[in-house]
Amino acid sequence: MSLDAEPIFPHELRDAWPALSRDERVESFKLVPHATADDFFLSLSAQEQAELILLLAPGERRTWMRLLAPDDAVDVVQSVAPQNRDALMSELDETTRREVLALLAYAEDDAGGLMNPRFVRVRPEMTSDEAISYLRKQTREKVETVYYAYVLDAQQHLLGVVSLRQLFQAAPDKRVADVMSRDLITVSEDTDQEAVSRLFSEHGLMAIPVVDAEKRMKGIVTVDDIVQVVQEEATEDIQKVGGMEALDAPYFEVGFLAMLKKRAGWLLVLFLGEMLTATAMGHFEEEISRAVVLALFVPLIISSGGNSGSQATTLIIRSLALSEVRLRDWWRVMHREVLAGLALGAILGTVGILRILIWQSVFHTYGEHAVLIALTVGVSLLGVVTWGTLSGSMLPFLLRRLGFDPASASAPFVATLVDVSGLVIYFSAAAVLLRGTLL
Amino acid sequence: MSLDAEPIFPHELRDAWPALSRDERVESFKLVPHATADDFFLSLSAQEQAELILLLAPGERRTWMRLLAPDDAVDVVQSVAPQNRDALMSELDETTRREVLALLAYAEDDAGGLMNPRFVRVRPEMTSDEAISYLRKQTREKVETVYYAYVLDAQQHLLGVVSLRQLFQAAPDKRVADVMSRDLITVSEDTDQEAVSRLFSEHGLMAIPVVDAEKRMKGIVTVDDIVQVVQEEATEDIQKVGGMEALDAPYFEVGFLAMLKKRAGWLLVLFLGEMLTATAMGHFEEEISRAVVLALFVPLIISSGGNSGSQATTLIIRSLALSEVRLRDWWRVMHREVLAGLALGAILGTVGILRILIWQSVFHTYGEHAVLIALTVGVSLLGVVTWGTLSGSMLPFLLRRLGFDPASASAPFVATLVDVSGLVIYFSAAAVLLRGTLL
Repeated sequence: MSLDAEPIFPHELRDAWPALSRDERVESFKLVPHATADDFFLSLSAQEQAELILLLAPGERRTWMRLLAPDDAVDVVQSVAPQNRDALMSELDETTRREVLALLAYAEDDAGGLMNPRFVRVRPEMTSDEAISYLRKQTREKVETVYYAYVLDAQQHLLGVVSLRQLFQAAPDKRVADVMSRDLITVSEDTDQEAVSRLFSEHGLMAIPVVDAEKRMKGIVTVDDIVQVVQEEATEDIQKVGGMEALDAPYFEVGFLAMLKKRAGWLLVLFLGEMLTATAMGHFEEEISRAVVLALFVPLIISSGGNSGSQATTLIIRSLALSEVRLRDWWRVMHREVLAGLALGAILGTVGILRILIWQSVFHTYGEHAVLIALTVGVSLLGVVTWGTLSGSMLPFLLRRLGFDPASASAPFVATLVDVSGLVIYFSAAAVLLRGTLL
Repeated sequence: MSLDAEPIFPHELRDAWPALSRDERVESFKLVPHATADDFFLSLSAQEQAELILLLAPGERRTWMRLLAPDDAVDVVQSVAPQNRDALMSELDETTRREVLALLAYAEDDAGGLMNPRFVRVRPEMTSDEAISYLRKQTREKVETVYYAYVLDAQQHLLGVVSLRQLFQAAPDKRVADVMSRDLITVSEDTDQEAVSRLFSEHGLMAIPVVDAEKRMKGIVTVDDIVQVVQEEATEDIQKVGGMEALDAPYFEVGFLAMLKKRAGWLLVLFLGEMLTATAMGHFEEEISRAVVLALFVPLIISSGGNSGSQATTLIIRSLALSEVRLRDWWRVMHREVLAGLALGAILGTVGILRILIWQSVFHTYGEHAVLIALTVGVSLLGVVTWGTLSGSMLPFLLRRLGFDPASASAPFVATLVDVSGLVIYFSAAAVLLRGTLL
């Protein structure tokens, strides 16, 4: 790029930032040219902004705190320890401080916690030319986006929205009321952020207005905040699917003990559940001692149930999260998954039977009853995979129905559930098919 | 809302849309008032737009195809069967058709496939007032966003960017060159969409310009397209973590056989891998027949390894996807995960030992060597959980290093890997600790 050479390019510093020590951050931040320092500062995450501000001398903090829009100031204040919050709040001007205090009252994961109370407003009776000049005036304040102007009556009721593009395209004397869109998508202050992000992704919007019960406008949520939310929600889901509590922070930023706690909890629950396999196996100790060969296929059979259950549960968890599948679809899903389970079980069962018969004909591993053993394994695989697929797909529905997060039906959780029932299926099949021969 | 009553509110129809039959869609679409039909049409997904257009009479198609910006027209054309593409392309005007043909040449998952070739451009020597009027003129064309204007020289080289807000705030006679930001984040046409979405989420941008190797501006990617991309990438990762190929479409829209194929493939690979457990168990058949009690704990031990491996692998897969952890961090991660594995293994091992000792004292389940059996199980758990955690956390790094997607180190894949080694660890521990007593 044939641009002016500058000491530190903000986006280069941005990339290096996570690797820098506290001192290096302060030093290199001071080297960013004044003209681009704002952009750089705003490109940092709330956590990074907060850390940087606290590292600066109290006299230098004001500029940076005041650069933040109220919703971003809230994020910064929330990401420092409680004893540091007042110090940061006191750097804000009076108006912003009051707005930040109001926003702090909202839950972080609701639309109210994401919204910016400053937006561009116009009156319905303005002409498009008047609206553009009025809008131009408002950009001197710290409005979050100038792309949409919200049309409010004197009581702050939201009547419609007009995009800058619509104003630009309209004849200069056309009234705002005649240009604006009246069919609005709005959210309320307590709409969950996951629902908000779904609206953004379904409708391809740049901003969504937040209104109270009387349709009075409270603020806007913009799409750039939502990209972050979508990432966070997906990360939470992936971590839960992997069988742990959501970490809520990047890997290296979570303390070792905190991370251990989030992982040990679920691992212990799964372990206690898995202990039932020892109990179940204990019931079949007699059969195992008579036909040790049965024990050889235990890992193969229970893990096939676990794997097919993991597939089904992650598939349904994600489909529910994206609203591709809704609670009322459980019946259709069950039909489909039983068929899928039978088909997958038939495939694995056939491969399992072939494996045993081929080994038998080459190595004579399994003795005179190899065909019966192969049949037992094949039938068990059909049963276990069908059952794993069915329970893996239904569990997320059950959890959602009971008011829990479907993502808690993690792959390891389903695998553990299926392990115990898999043993019962296997040894029951053996009891029937091998009676009078091996058993 | 005190808005005019209208026959069908677009956002109500939008919600009902997926549930409607083809005929109902055409009929209800015709009932949408003319003033809001555009908004409604644009709120549909590319797939839905394509289906709707093909249902309309050829004479009615033109209006809707021509409403689309070139990058959206590309999505619509790509989502219909090849034999229908020409029919849709012929509805476009000559200029757009040429742009769409050019965009179709880009891979769907690259920045080139996401970008819109129409953006607002200004010259560096314009005053801010001239730039605003020029910008106002350009909104009559179908530009994707008016929020940023790109400053180009006569050879279309990108010199800088100026936001509408900056133009509004600047004194009317100030030159664009003095207002614009020169520190630009750009991508090239073949930047992968995952990298593009990371830039959006790290920097909180509304749009990113796409430039060629000579820094000539080709188009822009806007954040509203990226929300969709972020969702899609997360879905792919979650499905891979669950142990299947990514579906690339909503659950009910994937044909039964296509879905079966995506699931059976991985399930078979895992099954073939898991067959090694039967081989491994076969090597210990002798030990099992002498001490059947050993078989009882096989599921407990291998599943604990699998669960801890699932946790570690999903944690690292997601951290790599979000660039919280980079390839070069593998050494730091290994250190941390070995410690985590030892700690988790010690916890589960202790619980396991207690479980056996308590059962023994209450039910006398495990005979005279119960303490030795408990010790064997405890030591094996420590080893298996540490090994599961270590291999689960390192596998995504290995895959990334070899050029594969780290998300392929799915929870079931790691569990299968750990199962075989878990058996070896368990029976080796037994061989040492139980020699001369049970074995």
